[in-house]
Amino acid sequence: MVKNIDTFKKEKIAAGKDTFMQVLISADDAPNFAMRRFTIEPGGSMPMHTNLVEHEQLVLNGRAKVIIGGKEFEVKKDDVVFIPAGAPHNYKTIGNEAFQFLCLVPNKEDKIELVEE
Amino acid sequence: MVKNIDTFKKEKIAAGKDTFMQVLISADDAPNFAMRRFTIEPGGSMPMHTNLVEHEQLVLNGRAKVIIGGKEFEVKKDDVVFIPAGAPHNYKTIGNEAFQFLCLVPNKEDKIELVEE
Repeated sequence: MVKNIDTFKKEKIAAGKDTFMQVLISADDAPNFAMRRFTIEPGGSMPMHTNLVEHEQLVLNGRAKVIIGGKEFEVKKDDVVFIPAGAPHNYKTIGNEAFQFLCLVPNKEDKIELVEE
Repeated sequence: MVKNIDTFKKEKIAAGKDTFMQVLISADDAPNFAMRRFTIEPGGSMPMHTNLVEHEQLVLNGRAKVIIGGKEFEVKKDDVVFIPAGAPHNYKTIGNEAFQFLCLVPNKEDKIELVEE
């Protein structure tokens, strides 16, 4: 399969502000893990939450303030980010560009739980 | 973990011509799958081969002619590529830019076998 990233359908993420997800390689397409791209529009954010699964990420565009397990980072294009399973994390865009990142997760049961900030 | 992609060590891939790999998130760092970036310099290539594991890829820079399971594609920045386990595949750069792609694999035993082209 070869397919341009901009041709995948965008779904709005209800828990986030101006946050969209594209499933690039799904749990049906591949046996072990899934590839998604998230886009958070300028001014958008994702609230503090936990997942049951880890995230392997690469920032593709823009900048954001990210808190992972109580530590704050400013992340930008070309940053590699690993978020262990269960670590509370959030995202808040910085500047006028959309913040876009690749986020891969194992094909395992996940559950998103919001956490008080 | 937050770390710029250009700070990871580059290893030369013996089977390829002018091909380098950076392990961004290793099988030791993460429980289920590993994230690597490959760089094939202009004029470089990887010969036809098979792996025991699937590849989930995103092209980050440049262009290449890629054959996957007997089908030929021209791939470029922002193309999502899925290569099933066992499918013969190769890469040959096109143009003057380095061809760079993210390539994720499960934390499972792999074996590379070269295939007659």
